[in-house]
Amino acid sequence: MSNHSDDELEGIPPPTIHNGDPESTIKIMLATDNHIGYNERDPIRGQDSINAFKEILQLAVKHDVDFILLAGDLFHENRPSRDCLYQVMALLREYTLGDRPIQIELLSDPNDGKAAGYSFPAINYEDPNLNIAIPVFSIHGNHDDPQGAGPEGALCALDMLSVTGLINYMGKIDLPLNDAEAQNTGIAIRPVLLRKGNTRLGLYGVGNVKDQRMHFELRSNRVRMYMPKDKDDWFNILLIHQNRVAHGPQQSVPEGMFDDSIDLIVWGHEHDCRIIPEPVAGKRYYITQPGSSVATSLADGESLEKHVALLTIHGKEFQLTPIPLRGVRPFVIDDVNLAEAAEKEGFDLNDKIEIAKYLKNKVNELIDKANEQWDERNARAIAEGEPELPRPLPLVRLKVDTTDVSEMSNPVRFGQEFQGRLANPRDVLTFHRSKKSATRGTKVKADQPELSIDDPELSVAEKLSKVRVQTLVREYLAAQELQLLGEVGMSDAIEMFVDKDDPHAIQTHVSTALRSLMKGVQANGAEVDPENIGDIVEKVREEQEQNYKERREEKPSKGKGKAKTADESDASMDSMMMDVDGGGSDFEMSDEPAPKKGRAKAAPKKTAAASKKAPARGKAKAKAKVVSDDDDDEEEDQDEIEEEPAPPKRTNRAAVLSSHQTDACSQSSKKAPAKAPARKAATSKAANVNTGRCDEGET
Amino acid sequence: MSNHSDDELEGIPPPTIHNGDPESTIKIMLATDNHIGYNERDPIRGQDSINAFKEILQLAVKHDVDFILLAGDLFHENRPSRDCLYQVMALLREYTLGDRPIQIELLSDPNDGKAAGYSFPAINYEDPNLNIAIPVFSIHGNHDDPQGAGPEGALCALDMLSVTGLINYMGKIDLPLNDAEAQNTGIAIRPVLLRKGNTRLGLYGVGNVKDQRMHFELRSNRVRMYMPKDKDDWFNILLIHQNRVAHGPQQSVPEGMFDDSIDLIVWGHEHDCRIIPEPVAGKRYYITQPGSSVATSLADGESLEKHVALLTIHGKEFQLTPIPLRGVRPFVIDDVNLAEAAEKEGFDLNDKIEIAKYLKNKVNELIDKANEQWDERNARAIAEGEPELPRPLPLVRLKVDTTDVSEMSNPVRFGQEFQGRLANPRDVLTFHRSKKSATRGTKVKADQPELSIDDPELSVAEKLSKVRVQTLVREYLAAQELQLLGEVGMSDAIEMFVDKDDPHAIQTHVSTALRSLMKGVQANGAEVDPENIGDIVEKVREEQEQNYKERREEKPSKGKGKAKTADESDASMDSMMMDVDGGGSDFEMSDEPAPKKGRAKAAPKKTAAASKKAPARGKAKAKAKVVSDDDDDEEEDQDEIEEEPAPPKRTNRAAVLSSHQTDACSQSSKKAPAKAPARKAATSKAANVNTGRCDEGET
Repeated sequence: MSNHSDDELEGIPPPTIHNGDPESTIKIMLATDNHIGYNERDPIRGQDSINAFKEILQLAVKHDVDFILLAGDLFHENRPSRDCLYQVMALLREYTLGDRPIQIELLSDPNDGKAAGYSFPAINYEDPNLNIAIPVFSIHGNHDDPQGAGPEGALCALDMLSVTGLINYMGKIDLPLNDAEAQNTGIAIRPVLLRKGNTRLGLYGVGNVKDQRMHFELRSNRVRMYMPKDKDDWFNILLIHQNRVAHGPQQSVPEGMFDDSIDLIVWGHEHDCRIIPEPVAGKRYYITQPGSSVATSLADGESLEKHVALLTIHGKEFQLTPIPLRGVRPFVIDDVNLAEAAEKEGFDLNDKIEIAKYLKNKVNELIDKANEQWDERNARAIAEGEPELPRPLPLVRLKVDTTDVSEMSNPVRFGQEFQGRLANPRDVLTFHRSKKSATRGTKVKADQPELSIDDPELSVAEKLSKVRVQTLVREYLAAQELQLLGEVGMSDAIEMFVDKDDPHAIQTHVSTALRSLMKGVQANGAEVDPENIGDIVEKVREEQEQNYKERREEKPSKGKGKAKTADESDASMDSMMMDVDGGGSDFEMSDEPAPKKGRAKAAPKKTAAASKKAPARGKAKAKAKVVSDDDDDEEEDQDEIEEEPAPPKRTNRAAVLSSHQTDACSQSSKKAPAKAPARKAATSKAANVNTGRCDEGET
Repeated sequence: MSNHSDDELEGIPPPTIHNGDPESTIKIMLATDNHIGYNERDPIRGQDSINAFKEILQLAVKHDVDFILLAGDLFHENRPSRDCLYQVMALLREYTLGDRPIQIELLSDPNDGKAAGYSFPAINYEDPNLNIAIPVFSIHGNHDDPQGAGPEGALCALDMLSVTGLINYMGKIDLPLNDAEAQNTGIAIRPVLLRKGNTRLGLYGVGNVKDQRMHFELRSNRVRMYMPKDKDDWFNILLIHQNRVAHGPQQSVPEGMFDDSIDLIVWGHEHDCRIIPEPVAGKRYYITQPGSSVATSLADGESLEKHVALLTIHGKEFQLTPIPLRGVRPFVIDDVNLAEAAEKEGFDLNDKIEIAKYLKNKVNELIDKANEQWDERNARAIAEGEPELPRPLPLVRLKVDTTDVSEMSNPVRFGQEFQGRLANPRDVLTFHRSKKSATRGTKVKADQPELSIDDPELSVAEKLSKVRVQTLVREYLAAQELQLLGEVGMSDAIEMFVDKDDPHAIQTHVSTALRSLMKGVQANGAEVDPENIGDIVEKVREEQEQNYKERREEKPSKGKGKAKTADESDASMDSMMMDVDGGGSDFEMSDEPAPKKGRAKAAPKKTAAASKKAPARGKAKAKAKVVSDDDDDEEEDQDEIEEEPAPPKRTNRAAVLSSHQTDACSQSSKKAPAKAPARKAATSKAANVNTGRCDEGET
């Protein structure tokens, strides 16, 4: 579509520039859970996810942000279709490449996390061969997490975007290769450190891992954040993609378990839009939850209007402005209780026709409501100078409590009447019975607490999609007399095959299982007595199945000894705090002596300015403002600089970064000459200079 | 690995510069059939294809070529694995991006073939946001052809590389959407037109289509090449990816059917290396066939040493230099006749142990031979200043004629003994019986002439992979009483599912078949008599099956009326010749009056130089030289300029291109300023200027 020309900014009010100091104000477009490819074969809704992503990119251009930050699940499928990947690549190339000068200087190592064996850096705008206008940083989610074990290790769809320089993939977590490694690994978070003027920003990303594991790692003090020494002078953002809502013990990550040096957590995975920053009891950080940009289930949370957030940061202050995604198909949801309605409206609960008539009226009302929502949003946008958009078919969901109703008509047939007026005619209705009669669901629930298969918000199709694989596998293997392959291992393999589109998962499992079975049999009886072979095989199989089970639950169970219990979690709140110099930090620079204390001393030239601009430090809460211009209190007490005790022989690289940043950066790349203009730009605030591309040719 | 630094060129003799005029000499790295991903899960051979591709890229850097030209099947799988695509992207970014100045000026429209709806150009080095050092041009092959019908139309793996700017994908053929379109479409070939100094090069690419269709289109004069008016002043390369060896009627493309303005055909698909240009009887063009860079079958042709070609072009002269791929695993193949051997060596044909012993000796000899090959090649490279490479396990194939042998031992078990000494222990032996006893194979052969399932060079696994799907489908559908779905349509769908990894092929077919079946039933009996419904369904099904069959064979059969027969093919030799102005050519520029005759007149400033440098035109044969420096005869008679009659109202854009090239190029992109330095470079021969990236920051 359009290019990122200046013309596009016409008629758009510039975002509220925080405290009138644009050179030190970082503007970020926050979005998450774009689920590109969701329902892509649906003739009506197929392009919804990609359209929303396109709108987000266009908003980023329009608001002239410094970068885009995504919190996981950019893709819905672990192995996105070719179409899907193609469109995302094309959009990223279209909207994030260009001549806009990059003003965020990279202070961390551009090669941190780069593709092994290749010379190009991990951070795309540090590559002199690419002309990046708006860098995109992203972690992976649970849908698009790394899988496979090819020559390049586990890869995910973001790796494809990263290797082409279209995205900066952060928070990739090395999967433990074996049990011993899993015991010792933990999770290491290396930040991307950025600077714009006097504002310094640490981006800490940690891609999705199973909630159980994250919970365990947090409790066990094994989440290691590599932070600069003067970490509290930075604005620190943590990106995570985990359950925030509890779905059972260890099936979510408590809000209050993170490091106190964090200022803002960007929480992905949860689809409802809760951008307004929420404080966390007893902690100094806030949480913002942008929510998904496409509804992947017709549940209450998804019916909230979809937004992205404009995050502006100045020093330790930040501001979050929700921006509606005006192109997103409206979605309204409601519920009715037929027994109550029959009483109130006076129709017969046994009359299917009357019930259908009543429900049709309700659905019509919801369609009208959705259309009104669209029209209002459209009118608002037009008033702001945006072009008019054609009204899309809305999503409508009516949850029907059928308690005391003997027979209902087919909900799919019911929806046919709304074809052409609704985007989801096939599943507009869901039926459920109220609590007292829903007890039959209990057993299912106990088996799979996290799946909530009896959730009344789910349609039949949605419920079907949640049927537990393992049960099916058990029955199938028994029927085929294939139990040798093992239920647990086999069902894991099938889940990988289905959920992650891993075409080799089953094959790999079968050969591994057979090979180790053979080994086991050999070990158990070098001279096998043909009479006993059945017993030996059975014994080996049982051992292996036990191994599988243990491996599966390993981190929470085996770790129990040293991990704190859930009750102790308060005590581990700062468990992620970590002495940078203690664990092989990136910030070592042993050939350069630095003073043991006092950040400012190492950087005499910058001291005055730096301390003047760092208003809130130490344990003081970062100031969150929601669309507010209040910025008077930027100068605050700045004594009491909290210093970690510096261990002997290690230098405090973070402390010297501000005075040596140019050196540090030119060290970090082989192609120093071509990048010189970019560095100059970031340092000298020259607004018009580009990352490594010279604008001299303008004439 | 290494970057494209100048250091790498140390110790390497520069390629023979043709006639000492480097500014007008185009250097091209020719390669094809890289089949990346072939056998990628094999623990020994898995990385062979990617390693060969890496070597090709390194050779391109080393020989400082202007661009790389690939003739299809870059990928082995239609949907390459994530690992595979990742590695190719990483390698292309590593070796083809950089500061090397591009010296080939693009004269055709950079937006020709670009992604619809996006602003970036189709030719990567015309994108000011990418710093391309070595452009790669490629057509698709039969393995990596476009598939699917998503919002972006049919896509192939090359589209993924093209949309990220890593490759310039040419020769994509629009698939006919329906029967009517197939009748009228034909194949249109739009060239990429390049210039370096006085040498002008037309690249005509046509990706693989079924041989039958290509044959038909050629015979029917429906292959339309859009050529500049003064086409014979250009050096014209045609890239194709079709069978060159006849596998049956219409199962290959005759060598002599192409346009006489072509100077060189680069033939992909055939895996044996035949780089030395071969003349074609009665034609003025040559054919070069680089062959694959990895052996995908253990057949004779693949045992020829693998090479790529360095193609240098100056005016109408060219030179092809084969360059061995020294990293490719050596492959030796041989055959033995056991009966003859038994007689000669005096062993008993009925003694399995004696036979095995004999065969083991043979295999050992072949291993030694392969290792010698490697050692010689390695020694040669070391003598030329290359580093030593560790010796890989060789590929060995022994074809055993077992005529008159009653029983053979298991070839897989036979190979186990060679584990650790061979790369292919499982299929080192193949067995066949000599012609007289092979008659049982005849029926199979008649059914599937193109598959040659009884080819003695195929191992059992290879043969199995060629079993006809349709036969299996017919039996299966009959067994399941699913004949309603139609054999032909269903087997096409299954082939798509299997061969092209299209996960939706079967689903799409089933719903289409059922929908049209329902329609057909309705049309045949608005008031359906339940008694007759079986008959009606059967009638409709038969009609549809007939349709499928016709559609499948459509182009060759329906076209018969107007197409020439195979005997007439000589007469259609110049059938592809096409008046550029007749078919909506790209070269129209109707707002600019151009003279009707005389190429030189429109470009007065360039006339002298241009005519001086165009030695061979018209029907004169292009001069092919193989590693030769003979370049004295560059000035030749240059009268008799063959002019196509210019039709009224069309202007001759090609004729004015040479004088207006700068204008033409700056029109072609929105980002003219940033690209100015690159154009200047191409025009002014300034060796050190870059494509759109300014080197001012060197200091």
